[in-house]
Amino acid sequence: MTIDRRSVLAAGVAGVGGLALSGCAATDAAGRAAQTALQGAARARLGARDRVLFQGDSITDAGRSREHAGEANQKAALGDGYAWQAAASLLSSDRGKGLSIWNRGVSGNKVFQLAQRWQQGCIELRPDLLSILIGVNDIWHTKNGKYDGTVAIYERDYDALLVRTRDALPDVALVVCEPFVLRCGAIDDSWFPEFDHYRAAARRVADAHGAAFVPFQSMFDRAAELAPPEYWADDGVHPTQAGAALMARAWLEVVGAISD
Amino acid sequence: MTIDRRSVLAAGVAGVGGLALSGCAATDAAGRAAQTALQGAARARLGARDRVLFQGDSITDAGRSREHAGEANQKAALGDGYAWQAAASLLSSDRGKGLSIWNRGVSGNKVFQLAQRWQQGCIELRPDLLSILIGVNDIWHTKNGKYDGTVAIYERDYDALLVRTRDALPDVALVVCEPFVLRCGAIDDSWFPEFDHYRAAARRVADAHGAAFVPFQSMFDRAAELAPPEYWADDGVHPTQAGAALMARAWLEVVGAISD
Repeated sequence: MTIDRRSVLAAGVAGVGGLALSGCAATDAAGRAAQTALQGAARARLGARDRVLFQGDSITDAGRSREHAGEANQKAALGDGYAWQAAASLLSSDRGKGLSIWNRGVSGNKVFQLAQRWQQGCIELRPDLLSILIGVNDIWHTKNGKYDGTVAIYERDYDALLVRTRDALPDVALVVCEPFVLRCGAIDDSWFPEFDHYRAAARRVADAHGAAFVPFQSMFDRAAELAPPEYWADDGVHPTQAGAALMARAWLEVVGAISD
Repeated sequence: MTIDRRSVLAAGVAGVGGLALSGCAATDAAGRAAQTALQGAARARLGARDRVLFQGDSITDAGRSREHAGEANQKAALGDGYAWQAAASLLSSDRGKGLSIWNRGVSGNKVFQLAQRWQQGCIELRPDLLSILIGVNDIWHTKNGKYDGTVAIYERDYDALLVRTRDALPDVALVVCEPFVLRCGAIDDSWFPEFDHYRAAARRVADAHGAAFVPFQSMFDRAAELAPPEYWADDGVHPTQAGAALMARAWLEVVGAISD
């Protein structure tokens, strides 16, 4: 019944099938998510005094300092990637005066590893806006034999993570960033169409939880028509400064203007 | 009477004094500008199929190819600075599908030199949205003996340029970018408070013509609290890629979402 309710609601909104969930917490969260989606509220609007948390893998980590991790709004703690660039833009404008911005991305992480460190790495930080970019390692580490994952496992784990997040932080605004690759460096034809299924799974998870979605793949696909893929991410996975700038701008657009 | 009318209208809106203008064209343009300002319309909203033109000095030029200057939306023609970065962001999003974007910045230019090449460099391109960043050479070249300018000359020339622009392109959306410096490299205490007067003049010109204003100086002042000034512009004048990224995002924010 739980599954059906969610499936019907979610499918009605976003054309996606539901995932098998059990337990009251999951039921409630799924109900809330579907309701949110039905209201067409899958936008994460940044508030003027929000606590903002970036989570993910190496693309988010981007060499951030662990020593300074507890300090909001510090360049060292924010790394040198899109999270820092988005933060720098916010903090250098009138909009950013009241924000507190953290980065807790960890290189190499897959979605189950976010779950392992979620209490300290997310819940206890009490973000008002939580942005997650995860997925490229879920496929990459499976391809190179370091992990035994599938799209279904990725989607199940990702969904469970957001159910748990909503239970602990009912009012959190969620941003799900689309995993992306560029066709150069480590990325060859063997990644497709499997990688596209991971992207689609991230989209379904976003829709099911009323999360805003940042369409990085379509953005980079078009960017690769303007400049070679290596210009945006020389190994096909990790963005250059130019790639990170593009991501930061797309992310800022999705979270929109600050409202009080 | 002309002067008085404009002064009163402009002062009523933006608290700025009027400039001495003569001739019917100037009168009409000033009247239109004041009316625009009175309507609170000093926003330049980017339209879905706009022709966009970046104009200015080396900061806009940023090594653009003259050979490809006639081709819209080409990286080579857009240089490697904030204009390219803003264009890349627009062109890699759904918003950018119908846009045509040019860059005609020329290194070393002062405002009177824009005027000398304005017919070909602006009017004949018929932009729907025109963005101008000019001013740092007006003071710099005066300080180093290459030019004999003053704030009053800068403001007079800049105002005349926008009067002429509005006469030729009555519906153009104008963006006036604030000249800026960072306190490093070529910039020492001798630049102040003189440079602040140039910034204030640009602001007055923007207000008088109903132009959107991009507050680059306050943005960089705050950015310099996040990372050293050299990180944003190593010589204090020409932005690094990080500085250009910050400018592109601020610029995109000012021109806002595309509306049909």
